[in-house]
Amino acid sequence: MKIEVFFSPSQIDDLFLRDKNVVVIDVLRASTTVAVALKNGAKEIIPVNTIESAVKVSGNLFGDVVLRGGERNGKIIEGFNLGNSPFEYTPEAVKGKSIIFCTTNGSTAMWKARYAKNMAVAGFVNISAVVNYIKELHDDLYILCAGKQTHFCLEDAVCAGMIIKMLMDRDDVEFDFNDSAAAAYTLYKNSSKNLLKLMRSTDHGKYLLEIGFEKDVEFCTNVDTVDIVPELIGNVIKIPKNNLPEKPHIPISIDTNLIKRD
Amino acid sequence: MKIEVFFSPSQIDDLFLRDKNVVVIDVLRASTTVAVALKNGAKEIIPVNTIESAVKVSGNLFGDVVLRGGERNGKIIEGFNLGNSPFEYTPEAVKGKSIIFCTTNGSTAMWKARYAKNMAVAGFVNISAVVNYIKELHDDLYILCAGKQTHFCLEDAVCAGMIIKMLMDRDDVEFDFNDSAAAAYTLYKNSSKNLLKLMRSTDHGKYLLEIGFEKDVEFCTNVDTVDIVPELIGNVIKIPKNNLPEKPHIPISIDTNLIKRD
Repeated sequence: MKIEVFFSPSQIDDLFLRDKNVVVIDVLRASTTVAVALKNGAKEIIPVNTIESAVKVSGNLFGDVVLRGGERNGKIIEGFNLGNSPFEYTPEAVKGKSIIFCTTNGSTAMWKARYAKNMAVAGFVNISAVVNYIKELHDDLYILCAGKQTHFCLEDAVCAGMIIKMLMDRDDVEFDFNDSAAAAYTLYKNSSKNLLKLMRSTDHGKYLLEIGFEKDVEFCTNVDTVDIVPELIGNVIKIPKNNLPEKPHIPISIDTNLIKRD
Repeated sequence: MKIEVFFSPSQIDDLFLRDKNVVVIDVLRASTTVAVALKNGAKEIIPVNTIESAVKVSGNLFGDVVLRGGERNGKIIEGFNLGNSPFEYTPEAVKGKSIIFCTTNGSTAMWKARYAKNMAVAGFVNISAVVNYIKELHDDLYILCAGKQTHFCLEDAVCAGMIIKMLMDRDDVEFDFNDSAAAAYTLYKNSSKNLLKLMRSTDHGKYLLEIGFEKDVEFCTNVDTVDIVPELIGNVIKIPKNNLPEKPHIPISIDTNLIKRD
């Protein structure tokens, strides 16, 4: 099984992931937020790569069933309904809604994978569900880390490494890694004992703490709290009908005062 | 002391490194070859980012004192005098010569750092000399790994991590790392006990073994065999006059049959 990791969407052309099996990771916070939104009953997530695209797409859809969600510099975009905190995507806010999703890195990575054969969105919160999904594919895997603009993000690499470790633990197959996959595996092994400490020390983790999103950083670190696989189906990300969750997911410790909108 | 690492020149704009202290790393093989060429008496290395630039620049210089060196896909470029193997850059070949240097990744990274305040070229072969050079600067450091086109190269990251480890061992100062620097440090710690095994297992290491450059991979792995610091002075890379070596450096195990030119 070949596993290739890419630390930033800027490393690859739009068509590189065409017809491949892809996992997109943006641990802080887009992957986590997409998983929570779908678990809480959102109909679908429509990832876009620019605010202009978000405005254009939402102009073509019915206003009362469409929300715009996303961030710039970690904060909600002016004129949008929701930011990029999983705590905002409650059942009350998102049930039955199409969400046009525009974040600096995560939605751009999801958009980059739009020609994939299969694409799933992964964070620590749904990592076992995604690993099971990958195993069913019995094929090579391409993991696209969102990174931060063109830059490497340690938390995304560590999450990629954890996926690799879980596949290696369970599969009796030979693996062939590219350099980034080998590095991700090493980086996960080095920080597996204290993921929260790692998350609080990374460039983006520190930034989120600074702007008041401590609870988000904690929530995004919890392993297997949201047991669904957001999948690319057509042009949108959703849960396939036969896998819909029985009950909505309520993020732990909801405290709306923590959600900064300035 | 702030240390930022970048895993590919594609991560940064041309002017980002302006007025900064920069170390450029392309372990396999450009960094190593530049160090050997200067140790063996080359007057200067002129890094360019395209073959067209190499041809243009050499047209403006006197033919008998100018060589063109470099590679595409690891092999010598048609019409060039030298490839990218350190074994080709013997005293007989390079003494007193200006070398226009064009490689897929290494010379492009050196070219990207052309506006730096200080720039040194580092590989394992001259790592202690470069670390001593950095210490004299008493300032923040930016390490640019050449990578492979837009991609991460493990051997460059490990070399960056070794530089960081050596600075930390010697300096009684506080360090502030970006995510890539923290990752590089971890990756070095994980492979420090067997660098040659690592080098033979990386994407580019395996490719060089495939095309017959086993001796190059070994030579590029040897620590501190070429005790000079190639520095950016004006638009060229050279050894400052007061640091010129007393005698030329003869790479170990020269066997010209190993140098493939097909």
